[in-house]
Amino acid sequence: MAAIDRSIVADLPIFAELGADDLDEILREARSVRYPKDTSVFDQGDDAHSFFLLLHGHLRVERVASQGQQIVVRYVSAGELFGVAQAMALKKYPATAVAAVDSIALSWPSSAWSRLTTKFPSLAAGALQTVGSRLQDTQARVIEMSSEQVEPRVAHALLRLAKQAGRKVEHGIEIDFPISRQDVAEMTGTTLHTVSRILSAWEQQGLVEGGRQRIVLRDPHRLFGLAEGHGKHGD
Amino acid sequence: MAAIDRSIVADLPIFAELGADDLDEILREARSVRYPKDTSVFDQGDDAHSFFLLLHGHLRVERVASQGQQIVVRYVSAGELFGVAQAMALKKYPATAVAAVDSIALSWPSSAWSRLTTKFPSLAAGALQTVGSRLQDTQARVIEMSSEQVEPRVAHALLRLAKQAGRKVEHGIEIDFPISRQDVAEMTGTTLHTVSRILSAWEQQGLVEGGRQRIVLRDPHRLFGLAEGHGKHGD
Repeated sequence: MAAIDRSIVADLPIFAELGADDLDEILREARSVRYPKDTSVFDQGDDAHSFFLLLHGHLRVERVASQGQQIVVRYVSAGELFGVAQAMALKKYPATAVAAVDSIALSWPSSAWSRLTTKFPSLAAGALQTVGSRLQDTQARVIEMSSEQVEPRVAHALLRLAKQAGRKVEHGIEIDFPISRQDVAEMTGTTLHTVSRILSAWEQQGLVEGGRQRIVLRDPHRLFGLAEGHGKHGD
Repeated sequence: MAAIDRSIVADLPIFAELGADDLDEILREARSVRYPKDTSVFDQGDDAHSFFLLLHGHLRVERVASQGQQIVVRYVSAGELFGVAQAMALKKYPATAVAAVDSIALSWPSSAWSRLTTKFPSLAAGALQTVGSRLQDTQARVIEMSSEQVEPRVAHALLRLAKQAGRKVEHGIEIDFPISRQDVAEMTGTTLHTVSRILSAWEQQGLVEGGRQRIVLRDPHRLFGLAEGHGKHGD
């Protein structure tokens, strides 16, 4: 297997504090793997054998509950650590990670985590920031779901996606991977029917532009107003 | 200020790998503070000046959303790190921590976090496990709320509390701090009225025993069945 050149990761924030020799040492234990669109990196319940860094692409992280309902937990973007289950004291992956587009990740054996983070504390600090920001996002979802109003929840979900994986296009901000209305329903704890109704209304009002597995936010400012519950009074 | 004796923390899992000199070094920067019942350790939006370790008692962590609805994010038990906002790259505390009973915590200035975790990687590993387990709990709540059935959500919430802070008593497992029906409503995204209706029915069926700010799980096994949605078919 060819060595992984440090130039492909040196710009990532998680490695920012590390020198060339340190990076080489970390990369020596990594494998680089391609995941074609719709293939899974790991499945919920699998032994947590590896942890990963996404180099290119986007992953959709899904979780199935005991009663069979599925939710989209989050999306992973390039530069993010994922699958750090063992570092969180979990023996098995708590969710399934699926390539939303053709993607490339580095993987390390989970057994290397403790040794690498002891030697390079900035890795542990980066992981803590990643997990911490997921916790904040997940708590925000709990709050939104507690409010029991669906429209602000959908607006919040689209704004979070745009912040994480938005790409400036002519008419606004496009979410930079294929996303279906069913995905949005599973992110907001509602039904496909409700999401379709809301997005169709927003399209007519010029707030978003849709298409097959495609969402463009045409007016993020007004969407933010809806997310904060100001929709009924204009803004 | 008197020095904090290492004997009061040496048994905590987060310090398990550290020697006496290491512990003394860590404790030298800590302050020990008492928080009488119903006082706050920090408030949502305050500058994240310190991080903490709860030595004794229980805290309720609450978060208020922009539209004013309040949720109980979690409870903190003795031995847990909390307020590690700055380690998660947050400048302000994302929630309010209130003493549910008279409590004692150690506090360190947030500025010490990076230095201490670099020197003692097991601290960072412990923090990652703490934040990771909160993330798992919060994701479980999102899944439960997506199911839109209230009864399993309340059962799950009580079982989580019993796992975290349960105390064996004659008739079952008592949640070891004062908890109101309103608290349970704010943990499950439902109303006081609904929680009262569910708990009253469960009391009549001998599943739980209530009282003023007091909950005893009399039959955790059957509650688990309800949490998994088997309630309608008996178990």
